[in-house]
Amino acid sequence: MRRRVAITGAAGRIGGILASRLAADYELILLDRVPATDRDVALVDLAWLMELRQAVAGADVLVHLAATSDVLAPWEEVLESNVVGAYHAFEAARMAGIRKIVFASSNHVVGGYERDGAPGIYQGGDQPALDEDVSPRPDSLYGVSKVFGEALGRYYADVHDVNVVCLRIGTVLADDDPTHAPVDGGPSWMPGPWDVRIRSTWLSHRDCAALFARAIEADVRFATVYGVSDVPGRFWDLEGAERLLGYRPADRWPGT
Amino acid sequence: MRRRVAITGAAGRIGGILASRLAADYELILLDRVPATDRDVALVDLAWLMELRQAVAGADVLVHLAATSDVLAPWEEVLESNVVGAYHAFEAARMAGIRKIVFASSNHVVGGYERDGAPGIYQGGDQPALDEDVSPRPDSLYGVSKVFGEALGRYYADVHDVNVVCLRIGTVLADDDPTHAPVDGGPSWMPGPWDVRIRSTWLSHRDCAALFARAIEADVRFATVYGVSDVPGRFWDLEGAERLLGYRPADRWPGT
Repeated sequence: MRRRVAITGAAGRIGGILASRLAADYELILLDRVPATDRDVALVDLAWLMELRQAVAGADVLVHLAATSDVLAPWEEVLESNVVGAYHAFEAARMAGIRKIVFASSNHVVGGYERDGAPGIYQGGDQPALDEDVSPRPDSLYGVSKVFGEALGRYYADVHDVNVVCLRIGTVLADDDPTHAPVDGGPSWMPGPWDVRIRSTWLSHRDCAALFARAIEADVRFATVYGVSDVPGRFWDLEGAERLLGYRPADRWPGT
Repeated sequence: MRRRVAITGAAGRIGGILASRLAADYELILLDRVPATDRDVALVDLAWLMELRQAVAGADVLVHLAATSDVLAPWEEVLESNVVGAYHAFEAARMAGIRKIVFASSNHVVGGYERDGAPGIYQGGDQPALDEDVSPRPDSLYGVSKVFGEALGRYYADVHDVNVVCLRIGTVLADDDPTHAPVDGGPSWMPGPWDVRIRSTWLSHRDCAALFARAIEADVRFATVYGVSDVPGRFWDLEGAERLLGYRPADRWPGT
């Protein structure tokens, strides 16, 4: 029997990638507070713990994607969607007896190092890649909320005997061809055009789905790893992702 | 002219220690949501950002103590007092133009290591002391909220040009004579009586006040350090506290 995987935020960009690419291997329970145009999603709001607990009942794994992904989101939105939302997701899973949670964290938990190193850091220079053990250094309230989520995950893993994997996800584009990426729209502190950063942080749809699949399958009490494709200017260390999850990027930046 | 130091949570235990021991060196603005019996405290609730901003106006430094300090506090209390409260404190300080924030964090941000190492860890065995660079491993929702506060501090330091010192405070007793410490009442996971833990974590009133004074004076963009007296079973590293703040414990556990 295929394992059952509940996914919050299933109407979002990564939700769509997982919904299509993981459907053959798992029985998916797609959840979101808004409907999706091209797939069936059960409507549930993270604000309501007991409703969420009902929605995830029977799942073997919870993949928690639902959050604001806007790095510039104001506090109120970060608080509701990412702080309270993460607690409700972990707690709903615990109450429902789910033994494995995959938490969509973000590279913005360490964005302060990137901010300090830009723009040289994007050239893949001689600085060592950031590993998972560097102290949190969020670049935004959004990043702070993801530090919170990772800490919550560690607490649930230690105290509530749940296996937790936190994925510090790179840049997933709507159009999976990175040469179509917009050149504007990056973080305001970024000195160069956005396409420079994307060459360091791009995560293809196929690699994204593989990363989550590896996280779902991994037999590990707690892990935090980075997720990025094989890009020329990579500055995050993939050693942990390979060692703990068996993840290796399959997609390479075009022409490199 | 003496510098002005605003203190939230001034009606609490550590607030009382700082109110009496720092009054000679600083002009103190004592704030709490409840009155104190033996000192004048201006009433302000962390829930109200603009009220808090008014209350800290004119201060040079904010010492943010206000929080639930109950390791077993339920989520609703942790969320309101420690998560929203910390954000309001940092944001009020920023809006008021305060350039230095001292944040009362907790050793419970790394309590998972202690939990793993107990009871041997209290014997001061051969394991290396925990330094400030170990990954967060909170033992409670309370501990998770303090990881959040430290991450918020790092964000304000990096992005809003405020100097921030986070103090991972040890065990401060109401009765400063540690031999009077109760033998029960410790965390439920602790295998031995509480007095065993206190011999590893005690922070005397004098050392507590000195630690905060050092943090107020330190010229450092961001620091996270432990605060503990000279106890026989210490398992937190004080190297950072000495190097970054110039803190050294003056008080030694009786008879050692």
